[in-house]
Amino acid sequence: MATRHHDLTDPAAAETAGPVTGEALAGYLRAQATEFLRALRLHRETGGPGAGAEGSVAAARALRRSARRITGSLHTYRPLLDADWSEEIRPELAWLSGTLAMEHAYEARLERLLTALQRLSGATTTPTEPLTGTTAARAGTTPKSRKTHPTRTTLIPPGAPAPATAPASATAPASATASASTAAPAPAPSPPPSTGTGTSTGTGPHPTAPPDRGNLTVGAAKAGALLERQLTLARTRAHSTALQALGSSRFHAVADKVALLASEVPLTAGAAGTDLRPLAAAAEERLSDAVAALPLVTAGHPYNAEALVHGLSPDPAPHPQDAPWHQVRLLLRLHRYAREVLHAGTEPVEVRLLQAGQALDRHRDASEAAAAAAQAARTPRIAPATAYALGVLHADQRHEVEAARYAFQRCWQKDRQERVPTS
Amino acid sequence: MATRHHDLTDPAAAETAGPVTGEALAGYLRAQATEFLRALRLHRETGGPGAGAEGSVAAARALRRSARRITGSLHTYRPLLDADWSEEIRPELAWLSGTLAMEHAYEARLERLLTALQRLSGATTTPTEPLTGTTAARAGTTPKSRKTHPTRTTLIPPGAPAPATAPASATAPASATASASTAAPAPAPSPPPSTGTGTSTGTGPHPTAPPDRGNLTVGAAKAGALLERQLTLARTRAHSTALQALGSSRFHAVADKVALLASEVPLTAGAAGTDLRPLAAAAEERLSDAVAALPLVTAGHPYNAEALVHGLSPDPAPHPQDAPWHQVRLLLRLHRYAREVLHAGTEPVEVRLLQAGQALDRHRDASEAAAAAAQAARTPRIAPATAYALGVLHADQRHEVEAARYAFQRCWQKDRQERVPTS
Repeated sequence: MATRHHDLTDPAAAETAGPVTGEALAGYLRAQATEFLRALRLHRETGGPGAGAEGSVAAARALRRSARRITGSLHTYRPLLDADWSEEIRPELAWLSGTLAMEHAYEARLERLLTALQRLSGATTTPTEPLTGTTAARAGTTPKSRKTHPTRTTLIPPGAPAPATAPASATAPASATASASTAAPAPAPSPPPSTGTGTSTGTGPHPTAPPDRGNLTVGAAKAGALLERQLTLARTRAHSTALQALGSSRFHAVADKVALLASEVPLTAGAAGTDLRPLAAAAEERLSDAVAALPLVTAGHPYNAEALVHGLSPDPAPHPQDAPWHQVRLLLRLHRYAREVLHAGTEPVEVRLLQAGQALDRHRDASEAAAAAAQAARTPRIAPATAYALGVLHADQRHEVEAARYAFQRCWQKDRQERVPTS
Repeated sequence: MATRHHDLTDPAAAETAGPVTGEALAGYLRAQATEFLRALRLHRETGGPGAGAEGSVAAARALRRSARRITGSLHTYRPLLDADWSEEIRPELAWLSGTLAMEHAYEARLERLLTALQRLSGATTTPTEPLTGTTAARAGTTPKSRKTHPTRTTLIPPGAPAPATAPASATAPASATASASTAAPAPAPSPPPSTGTGTSTGTGPHPTAPPDRGNLTVGAAKAGALLERQLTLARTRAHSTALQALGSSRFHAVADKVALLASEVPLTAGAAGTDLRPLAAAAEERLSDAVAALPLVTAGHPYNAEALVHGLSPDPAPHPQDAPWHQVRLLLRLHRYAREVLHAGTEPVEVRLLQAGQALDRHRDASEAAAAAAQAARTPRIAPATAYALGVLHADQRHEVEAARYAFQRCWQKDRQERVPTS
């Protein structure tokens, strides 16, 4: 709390030190452009068109980071910048940062969903459990593997040979994964196929496995495998798209423009002496207005069950209620960048803004993860146990959405109460 | 709030009016026994062995109500009552009240689950939706029908002919329900059966229906039909069991004992002058101890996701964490009945006890509804869309469990804070 109050009083002190002008904006943009070019050089040195190494991932992140800050500043301080130039470079930077973000987003989404599946399965799996193959496969997604390359550690590699020591039931997830990807017919429950792999998918009787037990654990494992397959595919595509983008002439044109920006910022006439604070205040006001339109009272009542209201809707994207929250997330980011320009890195980021932003990031991530679970459940010919696990997972993530709204509301209202006397 | 404080101060006033002795207990037991006999007479007059009419349901409820109060008082004030007699009648009354409770429990569980399915489906279904048959069937569970005989309004009657005007997809729920009940093989996804009813169960492609849309709505409707079938069957069995119980010699022996109790309470020697309050205080202490052992701090943090931790566990009854809460529910009831004896109906029930009890009732109901959804998802050969809907429903009810714990915690902690100065 002490740190928080410290952060809250700092900006007031900085703001009384005199007007911040367009010069500061130019300095900020030059610094961000330089960051962009440094990240680009790092990316070329470490990664190139090959598979993304550690350094390459960090470089891509740094590229996005500076691209977001440049576009954000161009938006907030638009009147101070050459309009034609600004209108030209802004969508290009947004395209670049959006393209580069996708790979990481799919990776994080899969990570989030697999972690949730682990949590929902009650974590502790006894080593004596009959479904050793599935258990072993699930153990492959423990924190250890997540730290390195979470999405590359396949839960159950499609088409991989089953361990020789595993019982027959262990091959079921692999065969089901393969059948889902090749659109082969689902195992007919009666009579059982001679290979015996189809009877343990959770739909038919279990002649060898204990009846009913392990059914949903298989479901969780298969749901994980399905999500892994779908999101890894999406991530791989996003990776290729990002690589293509970084090699495209469109990208080189953006890079050239940013290189120019690093040395010369196209301010309008008189902008160098103009006070930035009214424009920053306008950005803050847009944020406040958007927050005021949010259903914060509802969000402040825990377990309002609002977030799951459309959980079984036939609409594949049935959550228009999420959109205003996503919008606030963007406006909060713009406000934060606008403040960075004002304070020129002389103060740490306000803790309240970070917390609110984290809550909204979590809101966005959970919302998209829930949609991915619902989407996976629409895969044709999945086993009922898989669909059940995806249903639980979907609902779990929608409750994460609700929890994130609650967290944002707490963070925001608390701050407002504290600020009322000083504003 | 004003009423609540009023209620809180009342008991203190009543307790200072002098000791309450075994005489009061005898009076209370006689009154409850008389209530029991009145309810029994009412039950014979209105219902008899036929289907339960309105009056019969009310009579069964009144029977249970007085049976619970007698057993509860025998438990709390055991030392004041003839031990042999008490040990004999207590389990018999518990058996009776348990047997009579089952039918209502299944009815309420189905009601809760169907209402939740409606809520999760987003309620408003546009009349232009292509799946008219399913939509019409779902509309059959609107509040109107719930007010009369919720469990007898079949969502989609198994084997009922599809409406002539409905598209082919509308027959899918009925056929799937029938197939699940007759253990017929699930529709083979490829090649599609010539009847065309198997392709619209959510697993195969939709050649006529719009692809992907309506998939989960069908799932929700089919999940509702499945739950309706299973819980109506359970309810019907419970009804028969209750009727058999009411006609059994075992029941007549209990009724005779209660008739005796209505005129003569077998107090021990000296019990008539013994103060009841230490025994009542002991009951309250057992409650306090049990509440103190609950994870109230965790429950007080909303969205702790504890309740769903075992949501995908292979164990069919994976929620041992619920048991201490159920235990507190019983102890709270004993405490309430013990107070009724002390105050002999001269004061209204404390609002805080009612609220806490309601939260724990909700906890129990949601816990059992979640288990019913999980159990239904283990039905062999259900469609993936059905399983998905049941997964969402299960998670929803587990979050209701969590919400009920939060509500109990709020209610209990608030009361403790208010009471600290006076105790």
